[in-house]
Amino acid sequence: MTNSTSNLSCLLYGPHDARFEDRQVPIISDPYDVIVRIAYVGVCGSDVHFWHYGGVGLKVSTDNPLTMGHEASGVVHSIGSAVTALSPNDKVCIEPGIPCSRCKSCKSGRYNLCPDMAFAASPGPGPATHGCLCAYYKLTERFVYKLPESVSLKEGVLVEPMAVAVHSIKLAAVKPGHKVVVFGAGPVGILCAAVARQFGAVEVISVDMNAARLEFVKEFAATGGFTPDTTADGATNAAAIVDRFQLDRGADVVIEASGAEPCVQMGIHVLAPGGTYVQTGCGKPNVTVPLTELGQKEAVVKGCFRYGAGDYELAIGFLRDGKIDVKKLISRTVAFKEAPDAWESVGRGEGIKTLIRGVQD
Amino acid sequence: MTNSTSNLSCLLYGPHDARFEDRQVPIISDPYDVIVRIAYVGVCGSDVHFWHYGGVGLKVSTDNPLTMGHEASGVVHSIGSAVTALSPNDKVCIEPGIPCSRCKSCKSGRYNLCPDMAFAASPGPGPATHGCLCAYYKLTERFVYKLPESVSLKEGVLVEPMAVAVHSIKLAAVKPGHKVVVFGAGPVGILCAAVARQFGAVEVISVDMNAARLEFVKEFAATGGFTPDTTADGATNAAAIVDRFQLDRGADVVIEASGAEPCVQMGIHVLAPGGTYVQTGCGKPNVTVPLTELGQKEAVVKGCFRYGAGDYELAIGFLRDGKIDVKKLISRTVAFKEAPDAWESVGRGEGIKTLIRGVQD
Amino acid sequence: MTNSTSNLSCLLYGPHDARFEDRQVPIISDPYDVIVRIAYVGVCGSDVHFWHYGGVGLKVSTDNPLTMGHEASGVVHSIGSAVTALSPNDKVCIEPGIPCSRCKSCKSGRYNLCPDMAFAASPGPGPATHGCLCAYYKLTERFVYKLPESVSLKEGVLVEPMAVAVHSIKLAAVKPGHKVVVFGAGPVGILCAAVARQFGAVEVISVDMNAARLEFVKEFAATGGFTPDTTADGATNAAAIVDRFQLDRGADVVIEASGAEPCVQMGIHVLAPGGTYVQTGCGKPNVTVPLTELGQKEAVVKGCFRYGAGDYELAIGFLRDGKIDVKKLISRTVAFKEAPDAWESVGRGEGIKTLIRGVQD
Amino acid sequence: MTNSTSNLSCLLYGPHDARFEDRQVPIISDPYDVIVRIAYVGVCGSDVHFWHYGGVGLKVSTDNPLTMGHEASGVVHSIGSAVTALSPNDKVCIEPGIPCSRCKSCKSGRYNLCPDMAFAASPGPGPATHGCLCAYYKLTERFVYKLPESVSLKEGVLVEPMAVAVHSIKLAAVKPGHKVVVFGAGPVGILCAAVARQFGAVEVISVDMNAARLEFVKEFAATGGFTPDTTADGATNAAAIVDRFQLDRGADVVIEASGAEPCVQMGIHVLAPGGTYVQTGCGKPNVTVPLTELGQKEAVVKGCFRYGAGDYELAIGFLRDGKIDVKKLISRTVAFKEAPDAWESVGRGEGIKTLIRGVQD
Repeated sequence: MTNSTSNLSCLLYGPHDARFEDRQVPIISDPYDVIVRIAYVGVCGSDVHFWHYGGVGLKVSTDNPLTMGHEASGVVHSIGSAVTALSPNDKVCIEPGIPCSRCKSCKSGRYNLCPDMAFAASPGPGPATHGCLCAYYKLTERFVYKLPESVSLKEGVLVEPMAVAVHSIKLAAVKPGHKVVVFGAGPVGILCAAVARQFGAVEVISVDMNAARLEFVKEFAATGGFTPDTTADGATNAAAIVDRFQLDRGADVVIEASGAEPCVQMGIHVLAPGGTYVQTGCGKPNVTVPLTELGQKEAVVKGCFRYGAGDYELAIGFLRDGKIDVKKLISRTVAFKEAPDAWESVGRGEGIKTLIRGVQD
Repeated sequence: MTNSTSNLSCLLYGPHDARFEDRQVPIISDPYDVIVRIAYVGVCGSDVHFWHYGGVGLKVSTDNPLTMGHEASGVVHSIGSAVTALSPNDKVCIEPGIPCSRCKSCKSGRYNLCPDMAFAASPGPGPATHGCLCAYYKLTERFVYKLPESVSLKEGVLVEPMAVAVHSIKLAAVKPGHKVVVFGAGPVGILCAAVARQFGAVEVISVDMNAARLEFVKEFAATGGFTPDTTADGATNAAAIVDRFQLDRGADVVIEASGAEPCVQMGIHVLAPGGTYVQTGCGKPNVTVPLTELGQKEAVVKGCFRYGAGDYELAIGFLRDGKIDVKKLISRTVAFKEAPDAWESVGRGEGIKTLIRGVQD
Repeated sequence: MTNSTSNLSCLLYGPHDARFEDRQVPIISDPYDVIVRIAYVGVCGSDVHFWHYGGVGLKVSTDNPLTMGHEASGVVHSIGSAVTALSPNDKVCIEPGIPCSRCKSCKSGRYNLCPDMAFAASPGPGPATHGCLCAYYKLTERFVYKLPESVSLKEGVLVEPMAVAVHSIKLAAVKPGHKVVVFGAGPVGILCAAVARQFGAVEVISVDMNAARLEFVKEFAATGGFTPDTTADGATNAAAIVDRFQLDRGADVVIEASGAEPCVQMGIHVLAPGGTYVQTGCGKPNVTVPLTELGQKEAVVKGCFRYGAGDYELAIGFLRDGKIDVKKLISRTVAFKEAPDAWESVGRGEGIKTLIRGVQD
Repeated sequence: MTNSTSNLSCLLYGPHDARFEDRQVPIISDPYDVIVRIAYVGVCGSDVHFWHYGGVGLKVSTDNPLTMGHEASGVVHSIGSAVTALSPNDKVCIEPGIPCSRCKSCKSGRYNLCPDMAFAASPGPGPATHGCLCAYYKLTERFVYKLPESVSLKEGVLVEPMAVAVHSIKLAAVKPGHKVVVFGAGPVGILCAAVARQFGAVEVISVDMNAARLEFVKEFAATGGFTPDTTADGATNAAAIVDRFQLDRGADVVIEASGAEPCVQMGIHVLAPGGTYVQTGCGKPNVTVPLTELGQKEAVVKGCFRYGAGDYELAIGFLRDGKIDVKKLISRTVAFKEAPDAWESVGRGEGIKTLIRGVQD
């Protein structure tokens, strides 16, 4: 049971060492503070990595445990005196990183590059920050988004991964008439395919080794699917894609959402001269790429990191208008204390998106 | 001796097999044709590669020899009936690739990506085409540029490599206040440094292993020089550059004009979040890059291929206005029939830019 | 009756002086030539202006009559030896302006700004050129577009005005989530509304005084319609639009497709800070605009002239994919010799798009 | 005499009613607060307008007086506990507007469009805020900029108007090779000319009716000067500029820094097809513009409001590097209590930039 004096939280103390503890309930200390009672938390690949390795780069430890979770929806519990856009009991989803608002990156509108970003349960360039796998989570008004009447709390969890896809497709500048190849048909790859369609892509070809995922994404958003020949190199597989889908000189846009080295190589090769490639997935730190090919076709390769201004709003709009039916992605919902089971199962590649239910009253 | 019935040309028949032959003098067949009597031809690294390997990708052969040369200046010999911008005896430099003017790339203003580009002595995506190491060379008015009164025919040869630098710096969108790192201090790297300054770069740090070249570029254009520690990795060398030149979070722009794998890696590492990297040099087809780093800093990596609309005009403007003194780059001038000696000497890394004098009367 | 030795054409000799004459049948003279047997010619507002005033800027005269017509579809009659993308009997639509391919505008991909553009029946900056209201019309391969199997010759005529809309919406950079206000619900305004939706506009509000046209565009593409209060000023009407359609700080994009001064003013006022306004319609040469308002909201106002690279391809794609059903816009089709009746009736504001049938066998 | 318990300030109570009063000395209340002891305050045209009319839009009144001044330099007096970039006694200049950091405009990096901007002595969209014509002025760290050692406090005042010029030239995207026409040779027009040169403009033609100002700007930055013929219309004057300075099809960029209607018209006419025009000056609310001309040449007209991310840094860099010698613009310095005389004299068009000395110890 929760009440406002109990903040049950799931903290990671090390690999495979998650503990459920009653932490201090946050209190309003700034006039723009918002406290959200968490309803659902999504499981992301980075959570699984955390669970197995105790961190990405920085590591948690017995002395420095971290509350898990960064994809979340909930209900507004209380608000500071200056908050005007939200009221208690509003259904919301949260953007789980708070930038400094003062550095050059923040002033110029690229707050995802802020060196002091405090990102939930995901120590990046900024400080390690507790995540939202807890009963009550406090953040600031401008990163809490009201969900439209028609969007459920379960769907609201999907806004976070969809914001990743929106950010990626915006960086790629997908436009009507474009032919897009998306590598990877996990949740982010699937959402990239769907968002690319919303931006007007006339063809979206998804590439994945997993036949079931390929089938799902074709049903959901892609106009075509391709299974690479693992015995062939990137240029050969790319030529096969161009040939099968009549891409003329290649794809206008490539979204690499798998992080797999062979896909990176295939992606550069499948690009048309002057095309744009966005590295959305994360894999090995160092990867071999066909650089001469990239140079001679004047490809543009862009890094893509989380999300920024306007991305959440657009993702929520797609849900509000029924453009992308994310309910289909939710394959399983587990109870709060089953979080470790959820990480294990997602780590085994089961389902598409697994949700962890918030602490129950 | 030349006259209009003799077109002495230097053809490559295979590796180390150059022959001087009297070829047919071109005749005006289209109203926009211009015939140029070649004055000087510059030696480029690609010529040296051709000389040693008989081609880049496509190869010449005894059955399909190719006239060498693609950096050239000269004097207008004759013009077609529709030519209005040029008159006989005008000093000119030539842009040595003729795109089709009909494909999507041409219609949309990126003619350097034309699949049917006929590029002098450099079989790229388009057909193999004879180069300009000959007495008389024919091309079309819109790719022949009148040299200003103040620019000599020798300097005019440097317009071609400077157009490469202009293209690169425009792709990089160098702006006032930018801090730029240029890898490689060969002719193109030197010119990139100089052009970056013209675009307002407040600091240009050149990186090269060769102390003499580094000294030259610092005298010519760069504000700083750096010699990598060959025993250290890319991240370490990049950190050293950031530290030595107080680059804060990194360079705004990186121009990779060496093609060397360690420089590519150093270049990604030295970039500031949100920075732009342009691959201007050409090296191994496949190169290992720090892709996670690239992704998390939302770097933009751009390929760069030859030059396009407006690049020659801008390069000529820099010469006309005395902004970049390219005479200092010309280290040697040889006679027409000494072309193979020139390729050999450039291949040994001697001098900065070597010119081959045109056929003498 | 037509055959290949008869080229019945409709020429304008002066205001209200159209004559049907047998002109010379064109012959293939360049390897890229294509001769099209015209099937349908659309009536555009500029045709009506020509009919009444003898020209726009330049005037026709008894000594210099001009064949009318610039919106056309047809069937390939014959082709030059180098033509590969088309065959006789292909259904096609034509892009009726041939730029020089040599000037700075052409080389840089903005051929619609070419000073030597030869545009059918519409003397602009370039020379007066005969239009396509004739039996046989010759142009060059790269401006003849094959129609997909599913697109009829009647629909093909609409590609020209839709390319105007595509060009406008591309200049406006409409993106998913944008709220767009379109002034004018004539054919171009209607198509702008439809194309804006294809680019992802979440709301498109059409503004027109004509209730029937407003009804049509709401049925066809717009999400809302607004009839200005002619007794109120631009700021007041703009505030009413913002209020009625809950546009927050204003519209992200305004497309002005009416050319009417009150709409221009309303358009600047209705724009959100940082918004983009595209002047697509043509009206009085000089118009009073709220310049301080434009400045303080950092609005971007763009001129828009005809169409350019990729616009026809995208318009044809929308027809091919059934995204925009232009059949609904065709309100009337008249016989070839009834062209003057068509201009009169369009001038009276009757119907939406009137077609003139080509010369019958 | 000042000390930290006395904050002598100059407040406007209405037109021509300025009063010097001892106001409360600000105290540090937020950890990022910085209190600056003001050294110099520049006189801007908007101050003169305020002095004569009691406001721009909003008006001061006896009940709501406003401290004047928004161009200022000074010395850090005290800092909050979180301030790291500044120390007491640092020479600084101030950016006089504090945006909310929370709205869409702020999050997306266009904070000058923030609807809640608190701008010193210049009620815009946000609340009326006291200016910096006082002894002690408090603002937040991120809008206080340390002056380099080589830049004096007098020069530091000029950073504000130079930031306006930087913002304008960045919006115009001036690049090497561009030919630029700047209308108006007041302080902002002069600085626009100088900044355009720093961005690589090969020609900068200043236009003004005042011969002395034209002479000054030609000495300072412009490559040419033009005095309009007041009996001729905009098109005729534009044609004369194009002809005299051989601008081919027109100027690449126009900066309108006068606000005068004839200049606005001349500016649209003098633009080359595809050129960019930035409305930097402020004049009558409504102005007649040649809209058809604007449309047919696909001109881009941009509003320009104050300055944004990176503008102050770049302006300070130009001073630090000795690129623009703003000392030449300072024509007069008056004592604190002579502020009304300064407004009067600037209102009569005397000098270029007048400074008001801060309160003396």
